[in-house]
Amino acid sequence: MAILLSTKAATMEDWRDALLAVDPSLDIRLFPDVGDPAGIEAAVCWTQHDMAELRRYPNLKLIVSMGAGVDHLLRPPGPPPGIPVARLKDARLTQGMAEWVLLNVLRFHRQDLEYREQQAARVWNELPAPDTHKRRVGILGLGELGGATARILRALEFPVMGWTRSPRSLDGIETFHGADGLDAMLAKTDILVCLLPLTPDTRGVINARTLALLPKGAFLINAARGGHVVAEDLLAALDSGHVAGAALDVFEPEPLPADHRFWTHPKVLVWPHAASITIPSSAAPQVVENLQRAREGRPLINLVDFTAGY
Amino acid sequence: MAILLSTKAATMEDWRDALLAVDPSLDIRLFPDVGDPAGIEAAVCWTQHDMAELRRYPNLKLIVSMGAGVDHLLRPPGPPPGIPVARLKDARLTQGMAEWVLLNVLRFHRQDLEYREQQAARVWNELPAPDTHKRRVGILGLGELGGATARILRALEFPVMGWTRSPRSLDGIETFHGADGLDAMLAKTDILVCLLPLTPDTRGVINARTLALLPKGAFLINAARGGHVVAEDLLAALDSGHVAGAALDVFEPEPLPADHRFWTHPKVLVWPHAASITIPSSAAPQVVENLQRAREGRPLINLVDFTAGY
Repeated sequence: MAILLSTKAATMEDWRDALLAVDPSLDIRLFPDVGDPAGIEAAVCWTQHDMAELRRYPNLKLIVSMGAGVDHLLRPPGPPPGIPVARLKDARLTQGMAEWVLLNVLRFHRQDLEYREQQAARVWNELPAPDTHKRRVGILGLGELGGATARILRALEFPVMGWTRSPRSLDGIETFHGADGLDAMLAKTDILVCLLPLTPDTRGVINARTLALLPKGAFLINAARGGHVVAEDLLAALDSGHVAGAALDVFEPEPLPADHRFWTHPKVLVWPHAASITIPSSAAPQVVENLQRAREGRPLINLVDFTAGY
Repeated sequence: MAILLSTKAATMEDWRDALLAVDPSLDIRLFPDVGDPAGIEAAVCWTQHDMAELRRYPNLKLIVSMGAGVDHLLRPPGPPPGIPVARLKDARLTQGMAEWVLLNVLRFHRQDLEYREQQAARVWNELPAPDTHKRRVGILGLGELGGATARILRALEFPVMGWTRSPRSLDGIETFHGADGLDAMLAKTDILVCLLPLTPDTRGVINARTLALLPKGAFLINAARGGHVVAEDLLAALDSGHVAGAALDVFEPEPLPADHRFWTHPKVLVWPHAASITIPSSAAPQVVENLQRAREGRPLINLVDFTAGY
């Protein structure tokens, strides 16, 4: 029985090698060269793979999505009914995301946008010293990525808050939940970090109304999905100065169109969906683990909950 | 008996208020309005104060330098002989420095210079994922600032090395010392951080010879003193591409002259000596503590060792 592997061409062979390093006996087929469809028992694939295509494989037992976000699986037609879908929870993926958020929290906290402007104008001017203990960071989502990021920011002595759908507690973090909790947290958030899953409930959560709740001069960091942010509302808040800067890794659509104002806005930092990249050698063991579990009929790990949407 | 206070005009009153908040009975004289020179028992001053001027006060018992670095006190004429000099060791000052170094380590580690160039050209291109475990950070100096910075970088899983004048051990940090140790550390340093005191031994330590020892594509972060770096040598290493970027907070002279190439070099980030700023309310208690100790003839804290030069 074989594994269908389908991801960006640039990383296809790295993934194959990483999986074989864990289990040299694996029979891996690089899409579209899959051979007999009846021979495929698992599909390891990323966003560009057509879910309708996966209905061709009568003996498919497992789908592994090669990242943390699963919103691409929630859109029609979705994965074939009845086939379990796992996502990746990976320490290196989590670390990469926490690093990226930390880079941008520190960039905004330490007035880096202003210091870069000063350098461009050859201005030598010491700005008022920022106070870490007064720079309140609010994180939307306290899952694998949000939770790890919250802990690191707390260790660096930032006051950290977190918002989740249902009540949640995390040591040293002030937590909020539900619609009222969201508004309450935003009202005292100086740096807003979005690490939510994209679901019908969270789509457009960062919009004119919620941005207006932030204190004037707040910053936004979005490392989740482009669909969380209403782009025109954010641009208006940046233009008015209500929002002082934004670091954006994700957009809708991607790649960000060449004529989009985000590219040239002086208060926007654009990243090409590279905040955290799955490293095949780090993620391969959990893929092989799930494959063995599926073959032996044991419970799978990191299963996607399609009701919750993550 | 009174305290002479002399610092930048912009922060003079903040300092006075912070000292009075600790001890409202203090008699603080804002330089140059000092009244009777015989009434001054302590001078709390920063780099712009002329050390020759301090010889006017016959009853001076204590000088407090309002920062971590003391190289300005080592230049002739130096403080009046026989008067003890204390510097500041302050948790907030240390935290500010560690944050600033961390911002720049993450900026270089996460390819931010390249991503900013890509944004300017509207290029959507994911660069190869960086590996934290392979990004070796070498810190020159493991004192108050270097030690704290090393611990934070280690907690974020960077491999951290440190170089000191005499042998030193620090948990989880690979340490080096002496001239041979310096060369050995540089040869495997991807991001070099300078947090040394400026002494005759450390002046010009970052020069053509030592920069050439770094692996090609290494980065430099200097948060210590401009005199540690031979500016022309660094520019040559940046121009050749041997050094891929530099974050510089300190220069010789300061302010950095308007026609200096550092301002406009695409691989250089200029800061106006603002990596870490002493916050009066945080530092005032140790100043008052030392004043009380001086009055009572008890041992002082944070004394400058003029033989070692810090």
